[in-house]
Amino acid sequence: MSAQQVTLFTEQPLDLIFGGQLGQIDVAYQTYGTLNEDKSNAVLICHALTGDAEPYLSPAENQAGGWWQSFMGEGLALDTSRYFFICSNVLGGCKGTTGPASINPKTNKPYGSQFPKVTVQDIVRLQKALISHLNIPHLHAVIGGSFGGMQATQWAIYYPDFVDKVVNLCSSLTFSAEAIGFNHVMRQAIINDPNFNNGDYYEGEPPENGLSIARMLGMLTYRTDLQLAKAFGRATKNEGHYWGDYFQVESYLSYQGQKFLGRFDANSYLHLLRALDIYDPSIGFDNIKEALSRIKAHYTLVAVTNDQLFKLTDLHKSKTLLEQAGVPLDYYEFPSDYGHDAFLVDYDTFEPKIRSGLE
Amino acid sequence: MSAQQVTLFTEQPLDLIFGGQLGQIDVAYQTYGTLNEDKSNAVLICHALTGDAEPYLSPAENQAGGWWQSFMGEGLALDTSRYFFICSNVLGGCKGTTGPASINPKTNKPYGSQFPKVTVQDIVRLQKALISHLNIPHLHAVIGGSFGGMQATQWAIYYPDFVDKVVNLCSSLTFSAEAIGFNHVMRQAIINDPNFNNGDYYEGEPPENGLSIARMLGMLTYRTDLQLAKAFGRATKNEGHYWGDYFQVESYLSYQGQKFLGRFDANSYLHLLRALDIYDPSIGFDNIKEALSRIKAHYTLVAVTNDQLFKLTDLHKSKTLLEQAGVPLDYYEFPSDYGHDAFLVDYDTFEPKIRSGLE
Repeated sequence: MSAQQVTLFTEQPLDLIFGGQLGQIDVAYQTYGTLNEDKSNAVLICHALTGDAEPYLSPAENQAGGWWQSFMGEGLALDTSRYFFICSNVLGGCKGTTGPASINPKTNKPYGSQFPKVTVQDIVRLQKALISHLNIPHLHAVIGGSFGGMQATQWAIYYPDFVDKVVNLCSSLTFSAEAIGFNHVMRQAIINDPNFNNGDYYEGEPPENGLSIARMLGMLTYRTDLQLAKAFGRATKNEGHYWGDYFQVESYLSYQGQKFLGRFDANSYLHLLRALDIYDPSIGFDNIKEALSRIKAHYTLVAVTNDQLFKLTDLHKSKTLLEQAGVPLDYYEFPSDYGHDAFLVDYDTFEPKIRSGLE
Repeated sequence: MSAQQVTLFTEQPLDLIFGGQLGQIDVAYQTYGTLNEDKSNAVLICHALTGDAEPYLSPAENQAGGWWQSFMGEGLALDTSRYFFICSNVLGGCKGTTGPASINPKTNKPYGSQFPKVTVQDIVRLQKALISHLNIPHLHAVIGGSFGGMQATQWAIYYPDFVDKVVNLCSSLTFSAEAIGFNHVMRQAIINDPNFNNGDYYEGEPPENGLSIARMLGMLTYRTDLQLAKAFGRATKNEGHYWGDYFQVESYLSYQGQKFLGRFDANSYLHLLRALDIYDPSIGFDNIKEALSRIKAHYTLVAVTNDQLFKLTDLHKSKTLLEQAGVPLDYYEFPSDYGHDAFLVDYDTFEPKIRSGLE
């Protein structure tokens, strides 16, 4: 089935933490498994930057499956025979939840440049409103990788009595200077695209070249040199063009860039990249220790040692900060040729960590 | 003094290895120190991607100095009291040697899109013609970092009896799939700039946005997460713009991107990036072992363990290939927060390796 949808904040708008408000917020969500009688088995899945509300799709719906397809099912890491999973598209996204491409009810035009700044904190508050709407009184766990891991952390800070477990995969508490740098380059590629028009491009051509360049760069940070060397090495194309796709790795990146255009909005990409940069658990608190000390949930943090986006140094720093705040923590680290993307593809390695984190 | 200049291949053009020819080739070069009586102390310095013929500039000429300023002088790693150094701008560059922005003598217009493909092999053959023109019968050593290290290797393959020492810093024998991927993203940013005009932009506006994006991405691969964390961390700007330069690291990258526009030509950047990708010592030989077996020079290879562009895996592979070909080799590796750029800035660490490599 396709994602379900509900409209929230219909009476009072949501006040955003960087200023501005949003009302009439559509939220796309999906559920898997069955909520048990005492409503104690609900697990919220928070998706990563370009994910959506559907980690699993039946083969009849989509042959390629959802973004966490191989992890979810009866007896699997995300065990649908034990847990009731909820996943929703994030605020600012473009997969059914209100974002910059949505129609602004006040103007009947897409928000575009008028879409307000959104943060992980706002995303989590919208998720909380969805969970309330679904009459779920408590979350057994919140789980997410990358940008989703930041959301999981913020859940346990904002609603310490509501969440029993946090499972955070391949994500640190804040984004590094280097990672902000990569996001900056991606943003400039989009903003400098002549079609960008300050974000109001919905009546014209979208900034496709810029978005494709951004996506190609993103892909390079999600994988590793080892994986690309194994997959492509220095193999050339038979009919390649000298400047464009002489090597197979170039052709692969170009394909990924083009494929992305069909499924993602440039303004959403800009807003969510910035939410990644900006995220800091200490926002609204005196300092990060005060924020993290609120966490009552058991916290599982999983690092991939050769993650090129969330570097091991930053995962170690996050581990120390959580320990210093007295958060009950299980920490794991291991290498994977898949680098940052490992949490999406390296099932065998992640399965036991996810299982014990949710246990 | 400013770089000297000579015009070579005035009677017969240079045949390029990927096809095409270039005649009337201007070469900018500079020399430092004194050639001894038996002409046995000449050392060729090969510059990296965006370098030029002047590793050292007197403070009167330029307060910022040359690109290897702190390494060169009496008693320093590049000891001007012992060696006679020659450095020339590469073929395809934009610092006084013929490149895409130069006037094509056949049309009296800049080459632009008509500039032929250049390779490290062609660059080295032009350097050899310069050395002959200067009546230097033998090179004590050829030294270079990054792209310059590839040139140094090729010298020892093409002219095994002409070179006694090769010193190769932070460079592998070939570029990795990941590094080709980064170059691909940079190239696409330039090519998709609406001012690019297939490379014929010299009568209009140059593709500055694209070139600046490319440079910012390059900078991220030249440094490390550790260095950026120390220099900028997550510090924000007081008067930053939310999309453009909210964080100090963004402002730094933007500044680097803008600064580059004043000193580099986009077509040269495209050609030299591609020469990096394409370089393979085996071109023209049956295989890489046959090519490397020609080397008679003593070879010093220096790796920075946290180089993000030339990864350690590839340096290890190069080491093994050189050993298998019987090349007399000294290999060193060590970490540096500066990553790939360490060979340009981390004097204390590199000084003893360069000194012994030239000894």
